[in-house]
Amino acid sequence: MAKVRLGIIGLGQQGGAYGNMIKEGRISNIEIGAICDIDPEKKKWADQEFPDVPFYQDYIDMLASGDVDAIVTCVPHYLHPEMGIEALDRDVHALLEKPAGVYTKQVKEINEFANNKPDLTYAIMFNQRTNLLYQKVKEIIDHQEIGNIRRTNWIITSWWRPQGYYDAGSWRATWDGEGGGVLVNQAPHQIDLLQWICGMPKKVYTKAQYGYQRNIPVEDDVTTILDYGNGATGVFITCTHDVLGTDRLEIYGDKGKIVVDDSKKVTIKRLNKPEKEMSDTMSMQEVSKLLKGEGSGAIYQEEVLEFDSVWGGQHRAVLENFAANILDGTPLIASGSDGINGVELANAMHLSSWLNKEISLPIDENLYVEELNKRREQEIRQNIQT
Amino acid sequence: MAKVRLGIIGLGQQGGAYGNMIKEGRISNIEIGAICDIDPEKKKWADQEFPDVPFYQDYIDMLASGDVDAIVTCVPHYLHPEMGIEALDRDVHALLEKPAGVYTKQVKEINEFANNKPDLTYAIMFNQRTNLLYQKVKEIIDHQEIGNIRRTNWIITSWWRPQGYYDAGSWRATWDGEGGGVLVNQAPHQIDLLQWICGMPKKVYTKAQYGYQRNIPVEDDVTTILDYGNGATGVFITCTHDVLGTDRLEIYGDKGKIVVDDSKKVTIKRLNKPEKEMSDTMSMQEVSKLLKGEGSGAIYQEEVLEFDSVWGGQHRAVLENFAANILDGTPLIASGSDGINGVELANAMHLSSWLNKEISLPIDENLYVEELNKRREQEIRQNIQT
Repeated sequence: MAKVRLGIIGLGQQGGAYGNMIKEGRISNIEIGAICDIDPEKKKWADQEFPDVPFYQDYIDMLASGDVDAIVTCVPHYLHPEMGIEALDRDVHALLEKPAGVYTKQVKEINEFANNKPDLTYAIMFNQRTNLLYQKVKEIIDHQEIGNIRRTNWIITSWWRPQGYYDAGSWRATWDGEGGGVLVNQAPHQIDLLQWICGMPKKVYTKAQYGYQRNIPVEDDVTTILDYGNGATGVFITCTHDVLGTDRLEIYGDKGKIVVDDSKKVTIKRLNKPEKEMSDTMSMQEVSKLLKGEGSGAIYQEEVLEFDSVWGGQHRAVLENFAANILDGTPLIASGSDGINGVELANAMHLSSWLNKEISLPIDENLYVEELNKRREQEIRQNIQT
Repeated sequence: MAKVRLGIIGLGQQGGAYGNMIKEGRISNIEIGAICDIDPEKKKWADQEFPDVPFYQDYIDMLASGDVDAIVTCVPHYLHPEMGIEALDRDVHALLEKPAGVYTKQVKEINEFANNKPDLTYAIMFNQRTNLLYQKVKEIIDHQEIGNIRRTNWIITSWWRPQGYYDAGSWRATWDGEGGGVLVNQAPHQIDLLQWICGMPKKVYTKAQYGYQRNIPVEDDVTTILDYGNGATGVFITCTHDVLGTDRLEIYGDKGKIVVDDSKKVTIKRLNKPEKEMSDTMSMQEVSKLLKGEGSGAIYQEEVLEFDSVWGGQHRAVLENFAANILDGTPLIASGSDGINGVELANAMHLSSWLNKEISLPIDENLYVEELNKRREQEIRQNIQT
């Protein structure tokens, strides 16, 4: 095939955006194979915007139609894994929207299923991994340029969402509709980047606020301590109520430090000698000079890199990469199986906050589902009463 | 009296520095009344450096001598409260070095004692409170210029200390000698500033590393989540092993944000409207514009203030203020009774880390002493064995 025929499941904001990108010819190796939405109203829109494209109300029919080589799941998070499985089962390639699912148990299911279909492409929309800035940071860490990590710190509070955003859809920011708030909707990008660059922690402790500054039942404010199991620790902070939001990532290692400001500027300080060596060999006189600020410039080299913001192009790049993997085996930016780490971290954060204790990874996945379902049921009961 | 006759208890680094300041006439309202140290070696040094000043080996003798109107306690932290009490009991004014003590129980004792001696001056060396930068930040918060606080965040990892620093004294960074590490020795300044500016939290959760990057039994790395009880949260991070240390304080409120970099630069963003009002009234179109970065400058006013570093002058200022309070009632920069908040916070952080659970304030002070003493005893047993 020359182009991958993509089936877009869910013609909402994201599905519509992908449709337009493809229609406008901005993705060289993809054409729209079919569009699917359970809402009949969407058919009218689709007929108008994408007149020659088949429309299905049931995605299973679309998968069986032969119209599509691949699908992308622009639907509520709970549905990503099962739709992925149904596609792969019919030898249709699958690109999951993030997060891979709401809970690890369902994501494991699709990962295992995909394992048995090695010839099919299974990918996930971690568009931020195409960001050259974070690729550069990952390269520095992978090449041990700042040594082993001692501390990570990401304040990512720039996910501001006003009440109107939440009020625009009754499923938005609910336990039953989305399975959470900022952790499953906005922050999955940074949760994935953090684990992609710095690895998975062994334990997390989370303080989350539910409906703190927004009228929603789920979390709009999260503070987490990460424990990497070797003495290294981290902090991850996110919220949706800070209109002056901060985006600052700091990674501190044995041999240096990286600070990323606003996902645009990277400041890298490389120590001339590892910190341990400095600690072990410095005389008190040298220390005294250093503490007074005399000659401290001599202990490290600084490099500052500026990157352009590339928000728009990222989704395009992942779609193109997904199709390229199908067509010629180009390596994936984000394999579908990678999605579980972010889900596991978000689950662990929820669970820690619910039980008010530190949680070890891997989490007790049955306990997570049990606790999540309690919240879904309570929410449903409350909605019936009001 | 024209000048306060100060008795310096402990002629170590700090006591020596105060002695020299006074000898050189840099503190207008203080003269050295007497010097005291249990180490007879120090007498030789004192006789040479401060030839006309009486020297005592026992501080009780000094208090009873009539040579001093006031004392300052430049001795191990454990001794601050009892020396303060002995002084006040003899109608001698007391300036405690920070921290006020190692555990709240002993600090409460001196606070209660001082309460019954309202005519005496009881102060504490929180020299950082004289820093104009933090005074300005406190003023902004007190005047509600950024509204109620939603989040505090202080990364203060610039307290770098090499192994040689710890090896320089066998009491240093031990449970029995100092009662802890970075929390009782370096970070008390910022712990006090944080509570002075932003108030006390209701709960803390702490992840501390003991002897992580230094060969010491106490903590050299601490990460704490603060819960202010009203939805507001905070993070406090400190360590002594980061030679590229960060000093960044962020305070985010209903109506704006303050960021302090390196205790030198303050960036204040004041929202034109409270965030809640923006969230409640913004149309999705306006939101979309804002998220794209169009016209976001219009939602707040930015002010940037730069301050000179004033490390040297701070101790001098507190000494002078202490004497002025004795002489003419000038209000104290830091009343001695204020010291308990920092001690309580540090104790809560230790306790949370030891028990691996969130701790409510006020802490169980008997439990703290019990847990601390376990560590002191274990340390003593180990030292005997090696």
